[in-house]
Amino acid sequence: MKNVPYRIYLSESETSKQWYNILADMKELPDPYLHPATFKPVEPEVMKQIFCEELCAQEMNTTDRYIDIPQELQEFYKIFRPSPLIRAYNLEKALGTPAKIYYKFEGNNTSGSHKLNSAAAQVYYAKKQGITSLTTETGAGQWGTALAMACSHFGIDLTVYMVKVSYEQKPYRKAVIQTFGAKIIPSPSDTTDVGREILKEHPGTGGSLGCAISEAVETAMKTPNCRYVLGSVLNQVLLHQSVIGLEAKAALEKIDEYPDIIIGCTGGGSNFGGLISPFMMDTLTGRRSGTEFIAVEPASCPTLTRGRYAYDYCDTGHVTPLARMYTLGSDFIPSANHAGGLRYHGMSPVVSKLYHDGYIKAVASEQTKVFEAAVQFAKHETILPAPESAHAVRVAIDKAIECRETGEAKTILFGLSGTGYFDLNAYTSYLDGTMTDYIPTDEDLEKGFASLPKV
Amino acid sequence: MKNVPYRIYLSESETSKQWYNILADMKELPDPYLHPATFKPVEPEVMKQIFCEELCAQEMNTTDRYIDIPQELQEFYKIFRPSPLIRAYNLEKALGTPAKIYYKFEGNNTSGSHKLNSAAAQVYYAKKQGITSLTTETGAGQWGTALAMACSHFGIDLTVYMVKVSYEQKPYRKAVIQTFGAKIIPSPSDTTDVGREILKEHPGTGGSLGCAISEAVETAMKTPNCRYVLGSVLNQVLLHQSVIGLEAKAALEKIDEYPDIIIGCTGGGSNFGGLISPFMMDTLTGRRSGTEFIAVEPASCPTLTRGRYAYDYCDTGHVTPLARMYTLGSDFIPSANHAGGLRYHGMSPVVSKLYHDGYIKAVASEQTKVFEAAVQFAKHETILPAPESAHAVRVAIDKAIECRETGEAKTILFGLSGTGYFDLNAYTSYLDGTMTDYIPTDEDLEKGFASLPKV
Repeated sequence: MKNVPYRIYLSESETSKQWYNILADMKELPDPYLHPATFKPVEPEVMKQIFCEELCAQEMNTTDRYIDIPQELQEFYKIFRPSPLIRAYNLEKALGTPAKIYYKFEGNNTSGSHKLNSAAAQVYYAKKQGITSLTTETGAGQWGTALAMACSHFGIDLTVYMVKVSYEQKPYRKAVIQTFGAKIIPSPSDTTDVGREILKEHPGTGGSLGCAISEAVETAMKTPNCRYVLGSVLNQVLLHQSVIGLEAKAALEKIDEYPDIIIGCTGGGSNFGGLISPFMMDTLTGRRSGTEFIAVEPASCPTLTRGRYAYDYCDTGHVTPLARMYTLGSDFIPSANHAGGLRYHGMSPVVSKLYHDGYIKAVASEQTKVFEAAVQFAKHETILPAPESAHAVRVAIDKAIECRETGEAKTILFGLSGTGYFDLNAYTSYLDGTMTDYIPTDEDLEKGFASLPKV
Repeated sequence: MKNVPYRIYLSESETSKQWYNILADMKELPDPYLHPATFKPVEPEVMKQIFCEELCAQEMNTTDRYIDIPQELQEFYKIFRPSPLIRAYNLEKALGTPAKIYYKFEGNNTSGSHKLNSAAAQVYYAKKQGITSLTTETGAGQWGTALAMACSHFGIDLTVYMVKVSYEQKPYRKAVIQTFGAKIIPSPSDTTDVGREILKEHPGTGGSLGCAISEAVETAMKTPNCRYVLGSVLNQVLLHQSVIGLEAKAALEKIDEYPDIIIGCTGGGSNFGGLISPFMMDTLTGRRSGTEFIAVEPASCPTLTRGRYAYDYCDTGHVTPLARMYTLGSDFIPSANHAGGLRYHGMSPVVSKLYHDGYIKAVASEQTKVFEAAVQFAKHETILPAPESAHAVRVAIDKAIECRETGEAKTILFGLSGTGYFDLNAYTSYLDGTMTDYIPTDEDLEKGFASLPKV
């Protein structure tokens, strides 16, 4: 074992020049997307009306294990990557654990999260195809910021549908997005059919990610030379996010380490999927066994732990193709949980399939316990985690404490996907004791399941 | 010339194990501090009532060119250092300049700025001396956050007097400071004699840094086993901040570069002093000549460009020793300029002396022009600068444009001392066109100068 520094940064020459495509190694593939009207496998031509061509190709690519990162995109990555792999020496000491804790920190860019990895890629391909404008949705704001940054870099117009409750609670997020030149519309809005319909049915609603997706897709389909981009869930997004896991793996190899446990938070699954996939490759191909993969979700939106594995719409307005995934139903209204990025009814089809096939474990955490871990982590490691990322911190700490009790010196890797600088109202409510936990009842869940389409 | 990557991180073994003490190389030293009551050079014994012993020794040390960074502190530095030296390829390209622009980015820690470098050192020495609590002031909040982080790490109680206007405008800053376990009091407050007096004279005042300093010093002197710590101005702080310049210099040496122009923003002078001092050493000792050092200050608080070089109090309440420095007078009330960290009437005695002796140039920038540069920088380099740091960005861009006009491929280094995540109301006011510029009239300045003590 080599002497391990606090932070490992790969050099530019050591970073990955390719993404890893886990679809090429999965024993069984996720089920195909279905057309929202016919329930038949969706034709590539239909996908291309929504997404850029190259991204559609990536979405469907089940054969190429590695896909080249274009040179121009590599250059953009160099502005904010590689991100550090950090050894949590101080946290280990505070916990008195024999475990070795590493975390891959993706928060050191202005979007504050890993989202920029895929935003950069999607905007690059749009630009290459001659697309002039893009639409998207954002919840907590990380994705909207990331996309605004990428669009500013590549010179493409952007309209962001921001979940209304976030739009109102997070004026600073709005300001960052506007600084990078994007247009923001609170969702639901009267700029789309689906928005007008939702407003009519639920006047005064704070909106949801699913609804904002519907509006963004509708606008993209109705605007010439415009496409929609999505920040999570899709195979292409997991592909782009594989840079997280690839860099983490390369950094760990430099110090002769391989994780026993890998932990990430899951909303749509992009951070978790990107972190684990290069390690999951070793499991899928039989090079390694016994690695524990743990997805952590909020107890208030328990997609994996209490959801159903079924075909469902990715959005509330039912304009997107259906995916077979773990879902709470597209009508499920998550509580006003502070971890905005994890408030999504569905889950990446890849992550869902791996979970369904037993490769992944899932844990649901209550937010007061999550924030307890976040504050403990901040005090020792000096980084203020995003509420989303703090879900992973919670379970990493729990696992390290287990190691203290069993005396096992396990190697734990977790994804610190972002920072909490824009979530300080949540920290304040935790610190002043007004934060509460919310766990949906079985009845609440049944209401969501009732919206599942009969496929 | 080697192939220059976007970001250069030194390895742990390459980082400096010593600080550089510029006092050892100055041809003429700054004048001594004076006692606020007697106007005679202040005795070390008096200084030790306010500051920790080791820090007093550093303050007065004019002989040791290098001072060892204690091992335990080096370990703490490793949690957030080294910071990257970044080549601004994208900004260069956008400007069409032959200049090579590098910036040392200190914002990638939760305090959001370079302040943590000195906070860590000061708390370490306090702990070593057996001090159990500290007091300080904070304006924009970076210093308060940094100190709260360091106190949390070393286990020391902290009370922060936060300028009232910032306390009210920046609830998120407050939340971060509280997350790290510190107590915050809006200043002026009724917890001190000086606070009560100011409140009586100026009810409803939003406070100032000078006033918050007075309160923090008073509390430190009245509380057993408590000391005061200051985030800028002092020689000791510039000493600790020399890690910025030392790392920048080491990184530039790796790519065979030496800056022709070095630019930093100046409030109290710690960021600027820390950045330039290892390069200024080469100028002072005759190893180099022709390097241009530029301090950038807000036109609304033009300490160097329009202030006087005179003995003055460091605080409004006149409880601190006097320093000979560039000053606008301790009664000067800076306008509500958004660059909170630059709203200070005085300037580091070291920076003042170097400026007075002609080693440094100074430029005053208006804030709308500063924010114009900040937005331009963010769009191309993806980092959102703190309003303070954006002053340096402004002049770096101006210099790069000059190079475009003259065709000179100069090497420009500037300090990007922090991020603007907590200053988005300022960005919003710039973006929506409501931001205004304020330049004090000669009459305004005369009012401040009238408060200068007759020494």
